[in-house]
Amino acid sequence: MKLYGYFRSSATYRVRIALNLKGLPWEAVLIDLRPPASAQQTPEFRALNPQGLIPVLTDGAHTLTQSLAIIEYLEETHPSPPLLPRSPHERAEVRALALAIACDIHPLNNTRVLSYLRSPLGHDEPAIEAWYAHWIAVGFGALEQRARQLSGDGRHLYGTSVTLADVCLVPQMYNAHRFRCDVAPYPTLRGICAHLETLPAFARAAPQVQPDAPAA
Amino acid sequence: MKLYGYFRSSATYRVRIALNLKGLPWEAVLIDLRPPASAQQTPEFRALNPQGLIPVLTDGAHTLTQSLAIIEYLEETHPSPPLLPRSPHERAEVRALALAIACDIHPLNNTRVLSYLRSPLGHDEPAIEAWYAHWIAVGFGALEQRARQLSGDGRHLYGTSVTLADVCLVPQMYNAHRFRCDVAPYPTLRGICAHLETLPAFARAAPQVQPDAPAA
Repeated sequence: MKLYGYFRSSATYRVRIALNLKGLPWEAVLIDLRPPASAQQTPEFRALNPQGLIPVLTDGAHTLTQSLAIIEYLEETHPSPPLLPRSPHERAEVRALALAIACDIHPLNNTRVLSYLRSPLGHDEPAIEAWYAHWIAVGFGALEQRARQLSGDGRHLYGTSVTLADVCLVPQMYNAHRFRCDVAPYPTLRGICAHLETLPAFARAAPQVQPDAPAA
Repeated sequence: MKLYGYFRSSATYRVRIALNLKGLPWEAVLIDLRPPASAQQTPEFRALNPQGLIPVLTDGAHTLTQSLAIIEYLEETHPSPPLLPRSPHERAEVRALALAIACDIHPLNNTRVLSYLRSPLGHDEPAIEAWYAHWIAVGFGALEQRARQLSGDGRHLYGTSVTLADVCLVPQMYNAHRFRCDVAPYPTLRGICAHLETLPAFARAAPQVQPDAPAA
């Protein structure tokens, strides 16, 4: 399988973690989001994904977009180890945690949104950092409460094993650190991430160890 | 089942459609999002959903949040009629269409985001309408292309029967009209919505016929 992505893209990071957890071999195709390359906006890439967004996963037969749709596909085609619990209401709880990140935090802090705040809206970097920190605080504040209710061991966002919720949490925490957000108010989330980052599937998916990451 | 929501909330609108398509009886619990009520921010409501967001669905045993997680739950517990195709790659394509709306359009144009643009960012209504129209144009532009590729009959976003993608499209088109966005460039999407809105499950879910809608 080929995964079109970028080291810092947190949606790509989610799919890297899921592929590693499932033990599936994959090859990275680097899509440099930074201007002037802006490789996601080229006609060649838009032929693959009209949205001009990463990640895209191809397995020869199919071309899949949207990180959560890709991960549900991997879950259905490679069910072991499972990333969703068995019972429908538990699956709904895990998906709700993932969506609370993927719909309610990440899209607001995506590169294209921050670009629009710069131009045409004319905001400076402090205003953009405040915007970023605001949506992290709103999102992580609620998620910290849910983590206290739903984590079974303080090492996983839901229950006592790795789920889709963890796959979404770690990249979002990486982004929060990158934008120097104050994560002190979220000790449960920090503890969960500290554990997950030690797992090989997560560690090998980390942005800083991808081939397109700049040397330290 | 009780559905906590608001007539204009497009995430609630999605769940209303899905409940109607599945033929499930449900009772509306009205959560008035408008200040000064702001019923979603009360301690009582936050005890139900710490995110302070609608919709919430309760069925006596469970309390579920996040519209797409709720609809996947309904799909798993009441599989007929199906809102997702059978094969994993087709399911991924339908979910990707739904997520292209639920992650990449809707969250940017949500009430709380427009409020932040007003204050603290200080934008006036023309700037907010331009923001709204921008994300509709970016999102619907790509979706129109996908609709041409994936709709089987010009009456459904994917294939020839109602899916989760349609359940997300109709509320987003409603919002685009409400904010007076130019939808002329999206004839395929408009044609699909025109058909879907005639179906009883969609018609009965429309904002203007909910009990909390103001009289015409």
